[in-house]
Amino acid sequence: MLSFTVKRSAKCFFQQKNCLSSFNVIYENYGDPRKVLVGREREIQPLKDGQVLLKFLASSVNPADINQIQGVYPIKPSMPAVGGNEGVATVIETKSQNLKVGDWVIPALAGSGTWRSHAVFNEKDAIKIDNSLPLESAATLSVNPCTAYRMLMDFERIDEGDVVLQNGANSAVGQAVIQIATDLRIKTVNVIRDRPRVENLKRFLFDMGADYVLTEEECKTQLSDILRKESAPKLALNCVGGMSATNFLKYIRPKGTMVTYGCMSKIPFKASAASLIFADITFKGFWMSRWNDENNQSAERYRTLDYLSSLIKKNKLKCPPVSKVPLEKFPEAIENAMTEFTTHKQLLV
Amino acid sequence: MLSFTVKRSAKCFFQQKNCLSSFNVIYENYGDPRKVLVGREREIQPLKDGQVLLKFLASSVNPADINQIQGVYPIKPSMPAVGGNEGVATVIETKSQNLKVGDWVIPALAGSGTWRSHAVFNEKDAIKIDNSLPLESAATLSVNPCTAYRMLMDFERIDEGDVVLQNGANSAVGQAVIQIATDLRIKTVNVIRDRPRVENLKRFLFDMGADYVLTEEECKTQLSDILRKESAPKLALNCVGGMSATNFLKYIRPKGTMVTYGCMSKIPFKASAASLIFADITFKGFWMSRWNDENNQSAERYRTLDYLSSLIKKNKLKCPPVSKVPLEKFPEAIENAMTEFTTHKQLLV
Repeated sequence: MLSFTVKRSAKCFFQQKNCLSSFNVIYENYGDPRKVLVGREREIQPLKDGQVLLKFLASSVNPADINQIQGVYPIKPSMPAVGGNEGVATVIETKSQNLKVGDWVIPALAGSGTWRSHAVFNEKDAIKIDNSLPLESAATLSVNPCTAYRMLMDFERIDEGDVVLQNGANSAVGQAVIQIATDLRIKTVNVIRDRPRVENLKRFLFDMGADYVLTEEECKTQLSDILRKESAPKLALNCVGGMSATNFLKYIRPKGTMVTYGCMSKIPFKASAASLIFADITFKGFWMSRWNDENNQSAERYRTLDYLSSLIKKNKLKCPPVSKVPLEKFPEAIENAMTEFTTHKQLLV
Repeated sequence: MLSFTVKRSAKCFFQQKNCLSSFNVIYENYGDPRKVLVGREREIQPLKDGQVLLKFLASSVNPADINQIQGVYPIKPSMPAVGGNEGVATVIETKSQNLKVGDWVIPALAGSGTWRSHAVFNEKDAIKIDNSLPLESAATLSVNPCTAYRMLMDFERIDEGDVVLQNGANSAVGQAVIQIATDLRIKTVNVIRDRPRVENLKRFLFDMGADYVLTEEECKTQLSDILRKESAPKLALNCVGGMSATNFLKYIRPKGTMVTYGCMSKIPFKASAASLIFADITFKGFWMSRWNDENNQSAERYRTLDYLSSLIKKNKLKCPPVSKVPLEKFPEAIENAMTEFTTHKQLLV
């Protein structure tokens, strides 16, 4: 168990009863999240026009949050910063024409800080979502499922029956890709790393709609045959890098695209000249934070959230397993999130 | 000196005077061009409607021609095949409405075979060019200058004063990039390999309009400063691969493009996830043969050739040094072209 400090606002404690304070998980310097994060009470100021008072219901701990606190992520909030980029909050007081008490919202942009009990947001910094979603799904809606959906939509025109190839298929994004593709009648060829009881993981992914699941090793002997039987993919999704991505290049259809959204292996892939020149494959990257920034409050963003919410409500898009940890016990959640073989996403509630 | 065979058409020799035979440099199997190429006389058949009889004036020996004969290139002509993909011919007899005697043409598509004295072409397989160009420039117009121009046009909108970064800047394409960019008032930062008397090569490239010329080694200390003073390039052109291209990625402007059109180092570059995800750099390839195939006889293709021809006639686009070798002495040209440190492009005349 890690030690941490809660500095309560003495001023707030002894003031009038309307004074509300918020519990914030903050950092004042980049470093090991297990060391630099502290809990701090902060006084909530009265609302101005166009503002809402939010109570956070659940906030996720994502790998990018950890990297951001370590200082190795391109989002550099001003210090002291509140941790967390994803979460769902409910409006408990409003001076906005657009948001009413009881609405559920997610932060419009990354870097807003979600690891806190309460916050005052300008209405433009909050996106209203369906408040009848399961809490876990709402709290984890804005990053992984949105990433999966945009990657399926924005790079290639994928028609029913087309094949999408992906590695890291058991990641949260990978699971969302499988489920969304299933709804859109797109076939998925899913690559995972070999592991003990790999058949259990394969069954789990098949159950969610995966058409094919192969280990990296099985790709060597089976991927060609599968893609001959189906069709060569126009789109490959890469969150692993290294040999896994390098090997994909020979299977992608000429003029197709490989979209990189992560690099779990921490090794860049080898971009062969032949794949670029002769096969005319395009290599692109995708970063959900940038898409949100460029599509903040756009109709397309609302359409994306509506579509994903409808899938969740039809039970066609399940949330990966989560562990709920009370916000005040954040060190436990951080420790769990930084454990190498973590299987559950940590949700601060 | 290599041995080679000329098999003359006995039938043609003893027929009527109108019988014309063509000297062709052909191959019947893939292999070492020094071994598989042979000279062969072929009888020319009378023209049909829409056809023209061409006399080749000059044909170049390009690295891709060598690779094609070796069987390691994606263009696989049916055997026996005539070597060569680039050259200029003049119309000496015509049954075409569009092409008249004295017109100069270049093959519309790669794989037509240019290492021959005469050929019958369907008019759709020939592109008329300006017949007042210098012969060397006309013979080498369709590959390198077109590649340079299309790469400057097709991937990023480059405005006056913008910077283009390229490696292999002393290649034939690299030289064309410098000269075309100079005409378009685009700045070029040119990277070359270190070599004896590198200052001579730098002077040569500066004289043609290069704004900056750096060796790979000098890039390490000077490139950042230059690009801070100018502006980060939206477009980088890569014909080297390996570390040269990998190093480029940190200098390209976010949302910019690196276009790969060759791989002189024979080493793929490392595509880092950060350059794709956070800097949103796109990696594309360019292959002139495909562009020609997709733009055969298009207005844009004629515009490209007209623009480049006008530059040549204004002496703003010079041909790299060439050595002219009579067609019948093709083994000499092939031998020269395959010499490692060749400085002159071989032209069969």
